[in-house]
Amino acid sequence: MASKAKVGVLGASGYTGSELVRMLLRHPRVEIALLTAERSAGKQMREVFPQFSPYELPTLVALESVDWAASGLDLIFCALPHATTQKVIKAIFAAAPSAKIVDLSADFRLADTAAYAKWYGHEHLAPELQQQAVYGLVEIHRRDIKKAQLIANPGCYTSCAELPLIPLIKAKAIELDDIVIDAKSGMTGAGRAAKEAMLFSEVSEGFNAYGVGHHRHMAELDQEFSRAAGKEVVVSFTPHLLPMNRGILSTIYVRGRRGKTPEELHEILLKFYAKEPFVHVLPFGETPHTRHVRGSNMTFIGVAKDRVPGKAIIIAALDNLVKGASGQAIQNMNLVMGWPETTGIDQVALFP
Amino acid sequence: MASKAKVGVLGASGYTGSELVRMLLRHPRVEIALLTAERSAGKQMREVFPQFSPYELPTLVALESVDWAASGLDLIFCALPHATTQKVIKAIFAAAPSAKIVDLSADFRLADTAAYAKWYGHEHLAPELQQQAVYGLVEIHRRDIKKAQLIANPGCYTSCAELPLIPLIKAKAIELDDIVIDAKSGMTGAGRAAKEAMLFSEVSEGFNAYGVGHHRHMAELDQEFSRAAGKEVVVSFTPHLLPMNRGILSTIYVRGRRGKTPEELHEILLKFYAKEPFVHVLPFGETPHTRHVRGSNMTFIGVAKDRVPGKAIIIAALDNLVKGASGQAIQNMNLVMGWPETTGIDQVALFP
Amino acid sequence: MASKAKVGVLGASGYTGSELVRMLLRHPRVEIALLTAERSAGKQMREVFPQFSPYELPTLVALESVDWAASGLDLIFCALPHATTQKVIKAIFAAAPSAKIVDLSADFRLADTAAYAKWYGHEHLAPELQQQAVYGLVEIHRRDIKKAQLIANPGCYTSCAELPLIPLIKAKAIELDDIVIDAKSGMTGAGRAAKEAMLFSEVSEGFNAYGVGHHRHMAELDQEFSRAAGKEVVVSFTPHLLPMNRGILSTIYVRGRRGKTPEELHEILLKFYAKEPFVHVLPFGETPHTRHVRGSNMTFIGVAKDRVPGKAIIIAALDNLVKGASGQAIQNMNLVMGWPETTGIDQVALFP
Amino acid sequence: MASKAKVGVLGASGYTGSELVRMLLRHPRVEIALLTAERSAGKQMREVFPQFSPYELPTLVALESVDWAASGLDLIFCALPHATTQKVIKAIFAAAPSAKIVDLSADFRLADTAAYAKWYGHEHLAPELQQQAVYGLVEIHRRDIKKAQLIANPGCYTSCAELPLIPLIKAKAIELDDIVIDAKSGMTGAGRAAKEAMLFSEVSEGFNAYGVGHHRHMAELDQEFSRAAGKEVVVSFTPHLLPMNRGILSTIYVRGRRGKTPEELHEILLKFYAKEPFVHVLPFGETPHTRHVRGSNMTFIGVAKDRVPGKAIIIAALDNLVKGASGQAIQNMNLVMGWPETTGIDQVALFP
Repeated sequence: MASKAKVGVLGASGYTGSELVRMLLRHPRVEIALLTAERSAGKQMREVFPQFSPYELPTLVALESVDWAASGLDLIFCALPHATTQKVIKAIFAAAPSAKIVDLSADFRLADTAAYAKWYGHEHLAPELQQQAVYGLVEIHRRDIKKAQLIANPGCYTSCAELPLIPLIKAKAIELDDIVIDAKSGMTGAGRAAKEAMLFSEVSEGFNAYGVGHHRHMAELDQEFSRAAGKEVVVSFTPHLLPMNRGILSTIYVRGRRGKTPEELHEILLKFYAKEPFVHVLPFGETPHTRHVRGSNMTFIGVAKDRVPGKAIIIAALDNLVKGASGQAIQNMNLVMGWPETTGIDQVALFP
Repeated sequence: MASKAKVGVLGASGYTGSELVRMLLRHPRVEIALLTAERSAGKQMREVFPQFSPYELPTLVALESVDWAASGLDLIFCALPHATTQKVIKAIFAAAPSAKIVDLSADFRLADTAAYAKWYGHEHLAPELQQQAVYGLVEIHRRDIKKAQLIANPGCYTSCAELPLIPLIKAKAIELDDIVIDAKSGMTGAGRAAKEAMLFSEVSEGFNAYGVGHHRHMAELDQEFSRAAGKEVVVSFTPHLLPMNRGILSTIYVRGRRGKTPEELHEILLKFYAKEPFVHVLPFGETPHTRHVRGSNMTFIGVAKDRVPGKAIIIAALDNLVKGASGQAIQNMNLVMGWPETTGIDQVALFP
Repeated sequence: MASKAKVGVLGASGYTGSELVRMLLRHPRVEIALLTAERSAGKQMREVFPQFSPYELPTLVALESVDWAASGLDLIFCALPHATTQKVIKAIFAAAPSAKIVDLSADFRLADTAAYAKWYGHEHLAPELQQQAVYGLVEIHRRDIKKAQLIANPGCYTSCAELPLIPLIKAKAIELDDIVIDAKSGMTGAGRAAKEAMLFSEVSEGFNAYGVGHHRHMAELDQEFSRAAGKEVVVSFTPHLLPMNRGILSTIYVRGRRGKTPEELHEILLKFYAKEPFVHVLPFGETPHTRHVRGSNMTFIGVAKDRVPGKAIIIAALDNLVKGASGQAIQNMNLVMGWPETTGIDQVALFP
Repeated sequence: MASKAKVGVLGASGYTGSELVRMLLRHPRVEIALLTAERSAGKQMREVFPQFSPYELPTLVALESVDWAASGLDLIFCALPHATTQKVIKAIFAAAPSAKIVDLSADFRLADTAAYAKWYGHEHLAPELQQQAVYGLVEIHRRDIKKAQLIANPGCYTSCAELPLIPLIKAKAIELDDIVIDAKSGMTGAGRAAKEAMLFSEVSEGFNAYGVGHHRHMAELDQEFSRAAGKEVVVSFTPHLLPMNRGILSTIYVRGRRGKTPEELHEILLKFYAKEPFVHVLPFGETPHTRHVRGSNMTFIGVAKDRVPGKAIIIAALDNLVKGASGQAIQNMNLVMGWPETTGIDQVALFP
């Protein structure tokens, strides 16, 4: 085997950052050569994430102290906050034009700059890069990703809705004006920023919806569903917060088109994902639990018959930090680096 | 004040039983005169629920050892398993024809014996009593309950869907063929029977749907929604289990009828519940958390605008053991006994 | 009954504040006349704690806007941060010399100003008041509390160690140089400030000790144990954080003095607390769960025999927000106001 | 590389069984050739643990249907209940005398048959094998394990107390008559049997001790501590149940012998474990969290100074299902098979 590729993780003190480090430490083809964290610059990774105490890792540094040209990084994972990301990636490409970047923020997911401006309230800072970026949902856009230099890793909520729905939309198997996505996420999806509403005592032993009617992930859903349909699709989508750490479950209500039965919808998904290592369609009528994909890069999808004639209930589950973020990001890396797609991300789920 | 009424709790070793005892111990108008529990007969309540250790309570006895005529009970709460209940209540009325009964099981909720047979797989054992029973959702059927002798306390899932929807259905404000109820419940709703799927290690840090497409609570929803509409209504309903003890939250997707806006739906609910002590409608756009009703008899309802034109998202939350079971049962007792409706059940929610 | 007493809660936006409001709303002798919260001044209580949405409460105001003399408050609960408290209480007494105050902070718990300075790193700002303050552990200092004007409500950890140990120390029944207190607390004990270490994702599904060897509560333990013993007592004490909201459990290892057996230690506690409404000693060999006192003002104590000859294991459990804070504070109010001690705080524990 | 070794897992439907399968599926040197489960015989593994749905595994069979001689298994993991184990292992050795067995039950941990009879209430059924069995705590008994045929995998509580204490006892650095071990475990340690006390609703949001003064793990501690000391050692040990799935934390109170300081105790542990891949001693004064070893085979140990002169507080944390059971078992397999000790068990901890 050739020497290892050098990778960097920008924003290593957040949860998607630590999750990348967890998997990259055991990835046989890479060496972790750079870790950045603004407020924790100068610290060791073990000080911000004690689970890494036994392992050797680079000291955390500030972004501004990095010489991108000299760094010799083959691939960079960017796990930075929204907006900051656009500036940083622009600077990286300016200094190191051949670098490959997998961006875990929302900054490059929307191809349409007008849509971006509408949902985020300001003009995009790197519209030329936004055109180049490829949306990194591997099972849907694998061919484009292989050739990409900048990959926009999809959101966790959106992955958990797009994987079950896009094959059905492409197959013209469901009505497009009557899709309801009721989504529930574990708390790690909300990040590591210290906010009152995310304290243990506020969250534990309770459940609630949020962003009802106007969540930013909707823009991403609109884009991908409309692409798949070839016309505008607008769905009902409500996110909720679960009193647990990891896992997203989407309960999706659809109406079969032109008499398509729930069993036929199931069959379409089964075929579409037959050879995919990270999407598993359960037998008809079985539905997934988030706990059965925890810590793994797997997505489980189930299809059941609703008692309302013509309707089906589709349920998908994935780990928001793995297939919904860092595992997917490494899957994207494996693709663009030409490595076997499952390298370093084939861990079996941790249950219980 | 006159002497206290004598009440009995049948099935005191389950969660709805203990919850009744918790509230009845502080209810100023009653004396707990009888507690039954089959497998724990002969034990003290403190042995099955140590939280009652400091209080004096009757020894648990077996049902068959009770002489209903001699017991002198004014009111009986029946928190027994399905089917058993029918036989027991028949026997009670035979021996003590003037007793009042609030039944917390599902046995007398369905007025239609054919519907009962379809959903439960056997003929009803006391069809004559089923005709007399009044469905005990106080805010909807208060007048009938006051005159009833046998009250069928509603289910927890159903209460959390009927309270927000029935006023809208009655007002003919929503389309009836496009209602989706995505419901999530804490684990106490599943009872205290020792089953592998309910072990802490199986439930914690995970989330799942169950009974997809065919949950028994649907029969109860059909009955009440169809009554309110004056014609058959069939809704999509999916229950889920939350990794927490108490609380149900229903996320409901509806389409306004004849141009009714979400704001108008909100207005209807606000007026309908304006004077109700136990249903609180939040300002438009705010949605409830289960934690804010925990341990209380309150239901919180919120209405928000969906971005899909013409649709609204309605969210309701209640504590499944209180307003969804034992608190509602005591509210029913207060009504039939002619006491102020809030007596003994006006505890403020316990948060955090 | 005479008109209701007017009470104020300073620091109503924290957990001990909301817990006071929860119980005071149903206390038959008081009217909540003042609620303060610095950062939330001008807001309604429902905006910081939505569970109060259905109830009428005063608007939150800033401390500096209160005219203490004109307020006409009969009793003030002070649930403010450390140090601030000293200044505020000094100002209140200056303006309203006859006010009664129950202080829930640590500021007036240490009678010795030198001990205060050592543990808190600065001179006490109101040493003259510190002399007047009475330590408000009702079951130990009831007589003094009745006559007090300023009551220092004890800490949660300390209450859960002092209630089981002080009667044994007073009875000279245990060795004083070999006491180990291993204490575990739910997260609400850490307050509502937004800190990374207290986020749900950091706390859930994990357990740890903290402040090992040097926790501030030790000063309070030293004071009370030494008072009871008539000589200096220093114990081993380790606090831990539990992934749950409410409850403290102390596991205490003691050695009987002069051949005192575990059964004799149990007997001493049983007698000491025989008539107390809020301390319940379990039968010998039984030990308590935190869940069995949740939401109630109860303390449960159990005593068991260790297999190491001569040693006993004593376990105590209470709800840190009730008997460990706000319930105890209301118990203190009831005492100084001359009301029955259990008024408004006799709720039965909420389990499950 | 030569062909893969064939391994079997007896008792695959329990948590230690599924945890073995999770790690063995990704172990490069083995093939899972046999899975047994009595009540689930004939089922697929995915039916008892849906997380294995995407993987190919042998059908579950009953023990009695296995022909041990013909099975050709190189190594057998035995994760069966107490007592059953003795009979099964006897039968295996009779049929396949060269098989290697790692037993995860408590049946062969006690070398002394009298101690076994005392703690388990009946004579050992295979005393001749009990003599051969080697206690499989790798870091302490590595040399003996390499040559063993039957390895008694240690208990989870005991591993978490023995790893921090045995080096100190061997070094004669602590007093032996004053050791207190306060241990707390996640719920998976209690297994998968459906018992009321282990239901989510009974466990969640609460904490308690159990087996106070008389837990069976004490026999194992006595044996190992006495071996290390060369004389009888009896410690205080109290187990507690945490409302979480995985993790054990032991808080240990010791007194240095002949003036040994906490810093010196720390130094002894640091040296003892300097080259161990699975025991990590934190810098002096830092103490571990269970969450930082979750899902990994790591043990973290911390040492801090108590304020009681001469005493130290030692805290150890491990994942009860990995280093406390199945990870340790695979570590033992690696040793007896002559493979690198970390093969297949070097996963980094999953946090958050």
